[in-house]
Formats: sequence, C-alpha cells, structure tokens
Amino acid sequence: MSSISMYRASVPVFIRILNNLSAILDKAVVYADAKKIDHTTLLTARLAPDMFHFTRQVQIVTDHAKGCVSRLAGVDIPQYEDNEASFAELKDRIARTLEYLQTFKPEQIDGSEDKDIVLKMGANTREFKGLDYLLNNATLNVYFHYTSAYAILRHNGLDIGKRDYIG
Amino acid sequence: MSSISMYRASVPVFIRILNNLSAILDKAVVYADAKKIDHTTLLTARLAPDMFHFTRQVQIVTDHAKGCVSRLAGVDIPQYEDNEASFAELKDRIARTLEYLQTFKPEQIDGSEDKDIVLKMGANTREFKGLDYLLNNATLNVYFHYTSAYAILRHNGLDIGKRDYIG
Repeated sequence: MSSISMYRASVPVFIRILNNLSAILDKAVVYADAKKIDHTTLLTARLAPDMFHFTRQVQIVTDHAKGCVSRLAGVDIPQYEDNEASFAELKDRIARTLEYLQTFKPEQIDGSEDKDIVLKMGANTREFKGLDYLLNNATLNVYFHYTSAYAILRHNGLDIGKRDYIG
Repeated sequence: MSSISMYRASVPVFIRILNNLSAILDKAVVYADAKKIDHTTLLTARLAPDMFHFTRQVQIVTDHAKGCVSRLAGVDIPQYEDNEASFAELKDRIARTLEYLQTFKPEQIDGSEDKDIVLKMGANTREFKGLDYLLNNATLNVYFHYTSAYAILRHNGLDIGKRDYIG
C-alpha cells in the first residue's frame, strides 16, 4: 500500500522533472550543432521581451526545487551563483540539484503540512503553511518555469514533444 | 492539523488553476478588443506549427482535470464536444469543469493511491496506480497545457505575469 505524502509529492516529482529537463538540454545541443545555431541564441531565447530567457527559466526550476525541499525539511538552501553560460553549465546545475534532492529522506519532509514557511522576496515576505506552499507555490513555480523552458525550445524549432516533457 | 491527501493534491489544485485560467481569458478578451485583434487570431495562436493552438490547450487542461478526478473516484468522465469557438465558450467549458470538480468530496478520492487506472489512447492503453497517475501524468498534463496556454497569450502580447498564473 502506498500513500501520498509531502515527500512523495515533492522530491520524486522534482527529480523526474529535472531528469527530463536535462535530457531536453541534450537534445537542444544536438539540434543547435546540427543546424549550426549559436548555443547562445537558444540560451538567451525568450517568448516575450519581458519574459525570462531560457537560461534563467532553467535556473529558476532548480531554485524552486531545492528551495522547496530545503524549506519543508527546515535546512539551509544551497546557494548557486547564477552564472551559467552554456548548456553544459546548466546541465551541471541540474545535476547538482538532483544530487542534493537525493540526499533527502522521507522522514525529513513528511509531516511538514503545517510547518511555517516564510518566503523572502526583496523587502516583502510571504507566509505559508507547508502544504499550501508545496501545492500552490513551489510546485506551480517548478512547472511554470519547466514548461516555459520547454516552450522556448519548441518555439525555436527543437523537435521535442510531450514524451520528452513527461519522461 | 492538515494532511496531504489524494483529494487535497487534485481537486483544490485543479480548481485554483481553472479559476486562474478563466481570469486570464477575461484579460485576453479585454486586450483583443482594445487592440482590435480578431479573437480568432488569439484562439488559434500556437508557439510552433506542430503544437496545439490556444483553444485546444484550454480544452486539454479541462480534460485532464475532469479525467483525473473521475478516474480516481471511479466514476464516468463527462464528455465535452470540443467545439468551442470563442473565449465565452471556453470560459463556459471551464465553468462547467469547475462545477463538476466541486461536486467531489474528499472521501471519494482519498485512499485512491493504489487504484488501478487505465488510460486509453487510441489503440493503446497505459496502466497506472492512482498515486503515480496523479503525480506523474494528470498533474503534469494539467500544468503543461495550462502553461502552454499562458505562454501563447504572453507571446502574443498579453500583459499577464506570474501573479495571474499563480492566482
């Protein structure tokens, strides 16, 4: 008998998404090289002038994944430098995040439904309970930026589909 | 004390997304009218020639939401005609889906983690257990098509942001 839990709805879900995203990055490299597209063109592509470009979308996926599990477990969030300038560096960032997520055990995260979570955004703070934070903030943000990254590549001609997205 | 459950991770999450999507449709109408953009231009917009257009993305969001809760609860899935040709008709489809989702009680869905779920896709079938289906298929699909719908409008100049997406 399996049972949904805060761990089950976060760590394995984020691991799956990050693995899929990493595989999509591999396809983007093959595509760019085959078409002689400068990698930077894809890395800085965006769907609207005031939307984040591809690199930033990937960074934010990892930020929400590592931020979510750290906050639910009550441990410090590892800080990354946000200086990735290549697909290889983005893949490394994803790999580091995966490695980090894999260190968590269910007992560190399960039962965090009522935990007080405080998000600092500049001068503002937002307060959540763990369950609301996981379902209505962290997961939404992970999917939002993951899908945006996917859509940017799709819009730029990469031949990927739902199968790549779902894994 | 709150506790994550199959109901909590599906029905309220989908309701929130559908409410946000409905509000985004309202903004799209105001934008199209202000800019004298034919509504059909937005309704049929897509990010790549072989991606679904906006209308289809919205239809699929509702399909996965109503399909997921129906399958987890073990009831027949309401069938829609997929003939929406206006923002008003899409909003009506979302409203019908919201009304349907709101009829479910936690006890109809909680405990469905190990339930056998069979998805028919043309001649193929895919089998899941309830928990895997919710986290790794239905939720992914809802977010995938919700974000794609959002991104299509964003790419077409609609002034929406994360706040509209998260609600």
